[in-house]
Amino acid sequence: MSDAITYADWIAVDWGTTNLRAWAMQSDGQAYDQATSDKGMAGLTQDQFEPTLLALIEPWLGKPETPIIACGMVGSRQGWAEAPYNSVPTKPHAVLHEAPCADQRIKMYILPGLKQNDPPDVMRGEETQIAGFLASEPQFDGVICLPGTHAKWVHISAGEVVSFQTFLTGEMFNLLAKSSVLRHSVGDGSDWDEDAFVEAVSDTLSKPETMAARLFQIRAGDLLQGVSCGTSRARLSGALLGAELAATRPYWLGQNIALVGAPKLNAIYAAALQAQGLTLTQHDGDPMTLKGLTAAYKDLIS
Amino acid sequence: MSDAITYADWIAVDWGTTNLRAWAMQSDGQAYDQATSDKGMAGLTQDQFEPTLLALIEPWLGKPETPIIACGMVGSRQGWAEAPYNSVPTKPHAVLHEAPCADQRIKMYILPGLKQNDPPDVMRGEETQIAGFLASEPQFDGVICLPGTHAKWVHISAGEVVSFQTFLTGEMFNLLAKSSVLRHSVGDGSDWDEDAFVEAVSDTLSKPETMAARLFQIRAGDLLQGVSCGTSRARLSGALLGAELAATRPYWLGQNIALVGAPKLNAIYAAALQAQGLTLTQHDGDPMTLKGLTAAYKDLIS
Repeated sequence: MSDAITYADWIAVDWGTTNLRAWAMQSDGQAYDQATSDKGMAGLTQDQFEPTLLALIEPWLGKPETPIIACGMVGSRQGWAEAPYNSVPTKPHAVLHEAPCADQRIKMYILPGLKQNDPPDVMRGEETQIAGFLASEPQFDGVICLPGTHAKWVHISAGEVVSFQTFLTGEMFNLLAKSSVLRHSVGDGSDWDEDAFVEAVSDTLSKPETMAARLFQIRAGDLLQGVSCGTSRARLSGALLGAELAATRPYWLGQNIALVGAPKLNAIYAAALQAQGLTLTQHDGDPMTLKGLTAAYKDLIS
Repeated sequence: MSDAITYADWIAVDWGTTNLRAWAMQSDGQAYDQATSDKGMAGLTQDQFEPTLLALIEPWLGKPETPIIACGMVGSRQGWAEAPYNSVPTKPHAVLHEAPCADQRIKMYILPGLKQNDPPDVMRGEETQIAGFLASEPQFDGVICLPGTHAKWVHISAGEVVSFQTFLTGEMFNLLAKSSVLRHSVGDGSDWDEDAFVEAVSDTLSKPETMAARLFQIRAGDLLQGVSCGTSRARLSGALLGAELAATRPYWLGQNIALVGAPKLNAIYAAALQAQGLTLTQHDGDPMTLKGLTAAYKDLIS
């Protein structure tokens, strides 16, 4: 790059409940700068979205009507503007929703989330990671699992999202590990007993009716038998993930599985699934978001 | 009663994690006064227990070495003094544990909790309610269910606790309803859809492998279909209680069932169990505690 000031050809934005990330993009799909903020959707009123974004991306604005391509909760009813969900079955990135903005230097586009009517389910943000994954592997046919606070299992066929299902497993684990009586027994996460984890997953998966009974046993095992924090924590995680795998059996049985998420969480899901004899691939989720936003930008200008 | 000052023959104390209740008792088992405090075990250091109790019961002390009979977490390792668990099978009130105290006006006795080695489980406080229930119904043979933050299912035979199992259902419900993403959908408890509750219990009980999938559906049902707070809340409660009933089937199938707990919680459990065709009796838990403490006092002086 020369010494001349560089302005963005377009700007990619991932705006979730608790975080905002932006990338200054060149037309060839390369990011030449990035910026982050803790001003997630949850802390903003509707009129604060545009000024919040402008404060973050101001140095990148120099070209007329710079397109902003955004995904995540920014498109929810409580966000910048509601981008109505697309219904499955659908391609993961469908028509961009143009959102109003006051500043003439930018044009704001939001990627809509996906909805499913029966059983009811929704996603906002993960559809962009899915689009990013499929941009790299357009022939993929099978199931994408996106571990996280609210894990998603997504059935992909012929480049479309056919169906999906969301789980509170991550949020429940955090609540139970930090705020329930189990907090006295499961430690802070520095210890981990992989064998106990795999055993808990397999036991719960094979006898899902026993799940509820396993939780307090973790506390009692500590009190009566001095079970270690690492074993207790792995048993809690394993019981909850075993219940998720019991519910998603129709998704993963006999399927190609791709894990798309934070590497550490991917590894936990991989251990659980591999113990059931399944093969899978693992993909860092963050780069998939940028790939998905880039695919949407290419659609826009084509 | 005359105008003469009355002193307690003995004092009954129920001292849990978050609350302290005391009753001034006559030797015939009648309470003539009571007092409560929010100074539960969780907020006290070991040397604060005796002064805290004395401040509450001072007006009742006039007879030499007034016996105090206490139950609950006051007997845990973090309590006044650890009263080691009795192992099942055992009568619910076994030998009282005499705890040290500095003030010569009182003698402190703590009812030990119960433990079970396989599967590991513990209780402190409920054993006294069970003893109170059995004092009224000594011939009872079957299962006592004590709903609560940590519900207990207890198999009773020949006046003994044979086995028991504890569930985090109440604590999980509170965490999910107040602190998870579901808090936006389940309201504050003023609305309740009984049909949705019974349906959720029965569905989860018959297909426990689907439990984990039901939770986020509550949020999505609100977002996409405008499902009411009362229905959403009932579905959350029903899914969690259905999982508890799936795990406790060996306890309740074909058994006499007595519910011992707060009347409102008893009613929720009763609706769930009656929908499975079971018959049961319901008993307010609070008076059972005092009955159990009274039975222990009678043992002490006999």
